[in-house]
Amino acid sequence: MEYPSRLIENAVGEISKLPGIGKKTALRLVLHLLKEPEGTTAELTEALTELRTKIKYCKDCHNISDDEVCNICASHRRDRSIICVVEDTRDVLAIENTAQYTGLYHILGGVISPIEGIGPSELNIDQLLQRIENNKNEVKEVIFALSPTMEGDTTAFYLTKKLRQFGVKISTIARGIPIGGELEYTDEITLGRSILSRTAYQQD
Amino acid sequence: MEYPSRLIENAVGEISKLPGIGKKTALRLVLHLLKEPEGTTAELTEALTELRTKIKYCKDCHNISDDEVCNICASHRRDRSIICVVEDTRDVLAIENTAQYTGLYHILGGVISPIEGIGPSELNIDQLLQRIENNKNEVKEVIFALSPTMEGDTTAFYLTKKLRQFGVKISTIARGIPIGGELEYTDEITLGRSILSRTAYQQD
Repeated sequence: MEYPSRLIENAVGEISKLPGIGKKTALRLVLHLLKEPEGTTAELTEALTELRTKIKYCKDCHNISDDEVCNICASHRRDRSIICVVEDTRDVLAIENTAQYTGLYHILGGVISPIEGIGPSELNIDQLLQRIENNKNEVKEVIFALSPTMEGDTTAFYLTKKLRQFGVKISTIARGIPIGGELEYTDEITLGRSILSRTAYQQD
Repeated sequence: MEYPSRLIENAVGEISKLPGIGKKTALRLVLHLLKEPEGTTAELTEALTELRTKIKYCKDCHNISDDEVCNICASHRRDRSIICVVEDTRDVLAIENTAQYTGLYHILGGVISPIEGIGPSELNIDQLLQRIENNKNEVKEVIFALSPTMEGDTTAFYLTKKLRQFGVKISTIARGIPIGGELEYTDEITLGRSILSRTAYQQD
């Protein structure tokens, strides 16, 4: 498609580099920005520039943070004996939204994926081991909250081997039938796992 | 949702102001930019800033342009006797892609819509009348290529009244069954119109 202006072409090109945004959507966004006052674009670009240049990562859990230590790691109300290992910030947000977890987190920054060329050294794994080493007497349990994919399982397997030396309890979030899910519509792998990892009824 | 950083919150807020982008998508885009090198964000923000501050509109047709007069209006190969009236730049791109039209364009910048508070004075209508007045001997036909909506029809009706004084031919793009469309699946309004505006077969 031949755009009426080099500026449009350039902006559409840059926007459509973003994941899930094609040229048509990019053009729609560009024309929207042109209809809005100049301030709208200025605010958007400022927010993005500030984000990219000023962002910090918590030195303990490697989550995105405004300060050297993130709010969760700095909080006195969190249970410092449990560390939940997740892939990225979105997982932290999802778990925090449940309000069911009061421990700390550790962000790996991805999962081991030979296909994408991501090995253990690309992730914050050494930092996790160092962190547990430094807080040996405090950390009692490490929870894996990784995606139920081949890559997630590989990462969990690798971490399990590395964590063995510390003698901490290792667990993974439960996999089974979602609340509200119907048995007959559940795929066989999930259903099979949910039988294997059945929970004992507490009988008083 | 409580974001781990004010910078993230700010960026997500600005991105989700764009049409069709919600907070979840915005967060995905933000985390993508954080994973990419700083240059990616810099290129994106530069392209947007340059677009918004340097963009020009063709003084004749009001299309987006790099120069004072756009490529189409400046071209010697275009038929200057026909002006196609469209809503915005996307319509120009769509018509240009068909390679079936060699005339000029006039961009209204929208359609008359009392609900959204857009009256004739908000659009480039006076500019169109002035343009035809200035090129009285050149312009022979005005084609309306507006959306087949209430607003589009209102705008066409308004323009028809205003254009009557110039004695130019006025036409509108054909509405009917799309090529490849099945009769039985066509809505009754389109089908009805396609019967009323039937085209005579050329019998040799």
